[in-house]
Amino acid sequence: MSSQIAPITLADLQRPIRSRLEEVPQELRRIVEADFGLIAQVNSHLFQMQGKMFRPTLVLLADEVSGGPDPRAVTLAAVVELIHLATLVHDDSVDHSVLRRGMPTINSLFSHQVSVIMGDYLYSRAVIELVRLEDLEPLRVLSRVTNEMTVGEMRQLMSHDPLAFTEAQYDLLIRSKTASLISGACEVGAIRGEAPTRAAIRRFGDALGMLFQIVDDLLDYTEDETTTGKPSGLDLREHKVTLPLIAALPRMGESGRREVAQLMLAEEPSDAQIARVVTLVEEAGGLAYARERAHGFAQRADAELDSLSPSPARESLRASITYALERRR
Amino acid sequence: MSSQIAPITLADLQRPIRSRLEEVPQELRRIVEADFGLIAQVNSHLFQMQGKMFRPTLVLLADEVSGGPDPRAVTLAAVVELIHLATLVHDDSVDHSVLRRGMPTINSLFSHQVSVIMGDYLYSRAVIELVRLEDLEPLRVLSRVTNEMTVGEMRQLMSHDPLAFTEAQYDLLIRSKTASLISGACEVGAIRGEAPTRAAIRRFGDALGMLFQIVDDLLDYTEDETTTGKPSGLDLREHKVTLPLIAALPRMGESGRREVAQLMLAEEPSDAQIARVVTLVEEAGGLAYARERAHGFAQRADAELDSLSPSPARESLRASITYALERRR
Repeated sequence: MSSQIAPITLADLQRPIRSRLEEVPQELRRIVEADFGLIAQVNSHLFQMQGKMFRPTLVLLADEVSGGPDPRAVTLAAVVELIHLATLVHDDSVDHSVLRRGMPTINSLFSHQVSVIMGDYLYSRAVIELVRLEDLEPLRVLSRVTNEMTVGEMRQLMSHDPLAFTEAQYDLLIRSKTASLISGACEVGAIRGEAPTRAAIRRFGDALGMLFQIVDDLLDYTEDETTTGKPSGLDLREHKVTLPLIAALPRMGESGRREVAQLMLAEEPSDAQIARVVTLVEEAGGLAYARERAHGFAQRADAELDSLSPSPARESLRASITYALERRR
Repeated sequence: MSSQIAPITLADLQRPIRSRLEEVPQELRRIVEADFGLIAQVNSHLFQMQGKMFRPTLVLLADEVSGGPDPRAVTLAAVVELIHLATLVHDDSVDHSVLRRGMPTINSLFSHQVSVIMGDYLYSRAVIELVRLEDLEPLRVLSRVTNEMTVGEMRQLMSHDPLAFTEAQYDLLIRSKTASLISGACEVGAIRGEAPTRAAIRRFGDALGMLFQIVDDLLDYTEDETTTGKPSGLDLREHKVTLPLIAALPRMGESGRREVAQLMLAEEPSDAQIARVVTLVEEAGGLAYARERAHGFAQRADAELDSLSPSPARESLRASITYALERRR
């Protein structure tokens, strides 16, 4: 991964599929449309917090590199985004999160009840839409992915003890929680492709998803919040053990490990406690180790693309690796 | 519906499909099996609270009357029960229920988080299993039903104002919340049947489901709790407006309506308040009206069966109407 003078933006890599990507939000609206007032209200709030469309972008790029454009790909892109959205709604409810993408979450704006039901509503609409495509293959991929993600969420609930949570368990967690849907997005995009192409793109998505989540977990240790100018350390605050901490722990002194244990036991860790553990993790090389692993996955993702024929879409998939590595939140 | 000397039991009507029904629990275990510890733990708790298998019974009877036995029907019966189970897990979480079938709920025994994730786990496993059957038809029926049920849950959240909640809205609520899955169970059981048979069985299931829920709502007003010897009035306690109250309200005096309004405003209604409103509803004919509507649906269900060829399974479906009308909880 060469470092760039100007960082790669999502808009750059979306160029080959721009016009079809612009159809996705409307397709999403069609799929979730409801005549029941409360659902329509929640829907319109959800559309306001629209994300970066990273997963639909992957669906459409994977479609291009495997013989597209397939007219169903826009629908598949919308369904993948919808599954992502349904997951976020339930995650926010499980985590009691208040904000998402700078907007109030469904659980905070409406209620916990509405979030649980709404997540189910969105997911079942995704399944209905997949059935309408009259093809079992995307359903096979995406039902497996959705189930994987629930296992990932369960693993997350059990990830709060830094002395018991290993790097191997972390890998299993992020593979099921994040890499599964990113890989599934790539795979359903390439669903019309030859088996070897489809498998290469699926593996590309797996590696991309792994590094995507590692970078996400790194940002929690490195990215300054606009308000405080310090790393948010939100994962630490919520007692979530991620790769930087797992890697740093064996290389910390006894007193450092004690400080980590104290933070994990504190009902509400103080800002000073969090800042201190962030420093300890960095000093013990936890961030460097996590960056190294992210780069390892980047190389794997990159290598998978070599088997595909050259095209602007393939170069966009390549650029998506750099984007995922270099992105800020 | 003639009244019986000995009431019809589920075991009676399960006779024609008994041996296949006994395969359903094992099939269910196979479908939800997990190697992740926490999920396996929740699963084994769920199996302890196994229900009456009313919906699997309907799947297998519908299969018999429409040309069965189809080897896939046991799997479909397990999937329908699984969807029912997933819904209960989320419902209990939404309602903060503590007990279900005399056992602690998942949310009370584990946590709210575990319930939300576990419901998603169970439902996505159901979809995976339907995909394995290599037939889009059951998926089409059951994805629509699952979505309907979420709309029903949303309607439920909006059903707390007795002055605004009409009988027509109640019908929409119970059709989506309860009749949809009972009708779907019948329809997927008959999925191999001829179109007219399949349609008749679906309509039978709709009418059966409507009366099933009306009877459920009546039981809340009539069935004595073993501990108190008085009707539980749980729906009233939770400010849920159901048919007996809707029917009674316009026939109550001004002072009665005021007592209802007070109960609905009370954060925690007293036992005396609930007993008083139960009496008011009965005196105003609310229970009689709800019974009359249940009988109307029973007649519709019965009439749908007349178009099917006579068989022990058809007579069991007929008996299921009497069972649903006469059952205690």
